[in-house]
Amino acid sequence: MNSDIDRYIESVRAEFETKLEEWVEIPTISAEPEHKADINRGADAAVQYLRSLGADAEKVATPGNPVVTGKFVTGRDRPIVTIYNHLDVQPANEPQWLRAPFAFYKDGTRYIGRGSTDDKGPALTALFGARYAIEHRTPVNIQFIWELEEEIGSPNFEHFMKQKAGNLATDSIVVSDTIWIARGKPAVAYGLRGLAPMRLILETGTKDVHSGVTGGAARNPITELCQLISECYDARKGQVRMPGFYDDVARLSKSEIDNFLASGFTVKQFKRAHELKTMREGDEADIASRLWARPTFEVHGIVGGYTGPGVKTAIPYRAEAKISMRLVPNQNPDKILKLAKNFIKERNADVQV
Amino acid sequence: MNSDIDRYIESVRAEFETKLEEWVEIPTISAEPEHKADINRGADAAVQYLRSLGADAEKVATPGNPVVTGKFVTGRDRPIVTIYNHLDVQPANEPQWLRAPFAFYKDGTRYIGRGSTDDKGPALTALFGARYAIEHRTPVNIQFIWELEEEIGSPNFEHFMKQKAGNLATDSIVVSDTIWIARGKPAVAYGLRGLAPMRLILETGTKDVHSGVTGGAARNPITELCQLISECYDARKGQVRMPGFYDDVARLSKSEIDNFLASGFTVKQFKRAHELKTMREGDEADIASRLWARPTFEVHGIVGGYTGPGVKTAIPYRAEAKISMRLVPNQNPDKILKLAKNFIKERNADVQV
Repeated sequence: MNSDIDRYIESVRAEFETKLEEWVEIPTISAEPEHKADINRGADAAVQYLRSLGADAEKVATPGNPVVTGKFVTGRDRPIVTIYNHLDVQPANEPQWLRAPFAFYKDGTRYIGRGSTDDKGPALTALFGARYAIEHRTPVNIQFIWELEEEIGSPNFEHFMKQKAGNLATDSIVVSDTIWIARGKPAVAYGLRGLAPMRLILETGTKDVHSGVTGGAARNPITELCQLISECYDARKGQVRMPGFYDDVARLSKSEIDNFLASGFTVKQFKRAHELKTMREGDEADIASRLWARPTFEVHGIVGGYTGPGVKTAIPYRAEAKISMRLVPNQNPDKILKLAKNFIKERNADVQV
Repeated sequence: MNSDIDRYIESVRAEFETKLEEWVEIPTISAEPEHKADINRGADAAVQYLRSLGADAEKVATPGNPVVTGKFVTGRDRPIVTIYNHLDVQPANEPQWLRAPFAFYKDGTRYIGRGSTDDKGPALTALFGARYAIEHRTPVNIQFIWELEEEIGSPNFEHFMKQKAGNLATDSIVVSDTIWIARGKPAVAYGLRGLAPMRLILETGTKDVHSGVTGGAARNPITELCQLISECYDARKGQVRMPGFYDDVARLSKSEIDNFLASGFTVKQFKRAHELKTMREGDEADIASRLWARPTFEVHGIVGGYTGPGVKTAIPYRAEAKISMRLVPNQNPDKILKLAKNFIKERNADVQV
């Protein structure tokens, strides 16, 4: 059996690479509205390919980006496996890109290009795996859900589900968008953290003012946002400070922690893999629990005032921070967002959330 | 006498406006290195004009931008008045500019264009005043010092002073770069706050990392900088929190506060004049004291992570804040900067100051 899979892999590798190249080179960046046409192009390419392999495929419209569905149906009474992936990607404006991020590049056995590992490569891999299973008459139905808004928090996924749930009955779901902790040691993720995003904007005037003339009386939106953020979150302890935030967090059992450690997780490898110069201190169990079972509060972007070279000693009139909280089992996103908004409004009534 | 001055003003208005236009349209932005040639062009124009009026003028080189000096010498035994202005300007990247900032524009009796009020207009006004005094044989020598690094904290002014102090003996100095508090009520500033700048940079990795994968273990440089800034400064109270910061601040006397109020200062007018939507609360005496006699701590710019449209849920690897403290009489800038650096290093050893 193994050697048969190996032969299959070799026989389809060229096709896999051609397809991955084609998909990676479509910049399906969901965060940037100017890529709307690329999103649709990416969805169309996926539908077309699914159909060429004999699947029933559809581009399902939502108020936002479409969702691609595909089905290999082999028999009504057979179990149904649903595989989830996403075809949208993050913006690729990091200065560390050595090559054009949307030009696919093969470096030995590594595939390089935005989306090749998150999540177009895994989507294609799962599809090739399904194709193999179907070709070998495995008694199973396989269906795909490929989202195009995953990277922006899936704002219309619920809409899609409500619309299509009737056609998507399933016996099991595989989310094929996670990681293996250690090379050569397969791991199955059985829980994922969700995302509750917020944007904080504070405007205290209509233009920058002179810090010599107005400093001391004018309110500085940057220092106020900084203070507010540090009241929400203790960056030193890695602890959210908003009362009630942790109330509903599910407790980890001893066996869960043991499983975390059995995955092959080490702080050292984690630090190296993510190129973190420094990271939070803690033992393996503490860090693994923080990563996989504790909620977070992160500021993804902050901007205010003059950020060019040199100094411009003005007091800005506006500052903005993009924030997300990763939530864990038993935390209710609506409840947490409401709790956070109330906390922020109480501390600084002028901040728009 | 008055009508003579009025006649003089009318007779030179056209020349004044032509000259102001010429100077304003040279973008002498000291914060932006690409304007180095404009800085020199601005200095040359000033030297040339001083000479055309009969002054001894010179462009004095420093390790940074030059300083322009000019002298009207009428007699060795006569008192010397030195007038200080600066010819550099702030960057003009504010979105509120309705016209090109370096295209001079006359709107009735208002002159519009970057630098027309800070500080090229006042420099020219003082020069025309001096010219009137000299032409009317006022028994005084008048000399000018026009700096081209004022807006970036005068890093080479000390160098200039050490080099040229011997030639610049003076009986009094007028800093012609301040404001009148109320229209029609002349005011003399008898003290100015100085500027102690800092830049804080925190890098916790070499690239942005995924907040779902690393959040909870990776250090977030934005939240850490926010926390650090709020530990340095209470934005709500407008109070610096670093121990020792206020130790040497000179106390205000009752008569000083009375003079502040006699200047015509009102919180309402101040708020309107600077287009502040909201400002710090306090009565006239409190706000005036904060503005003119209390030190400040301001963040002029902060940037970190993704600041484009939408959300990018990465944890950034770098954040940066540009900060200045305005210092008041008896505060020693070296001492304060050292105090601040020590405080910051103690709170977050990874921050580069």
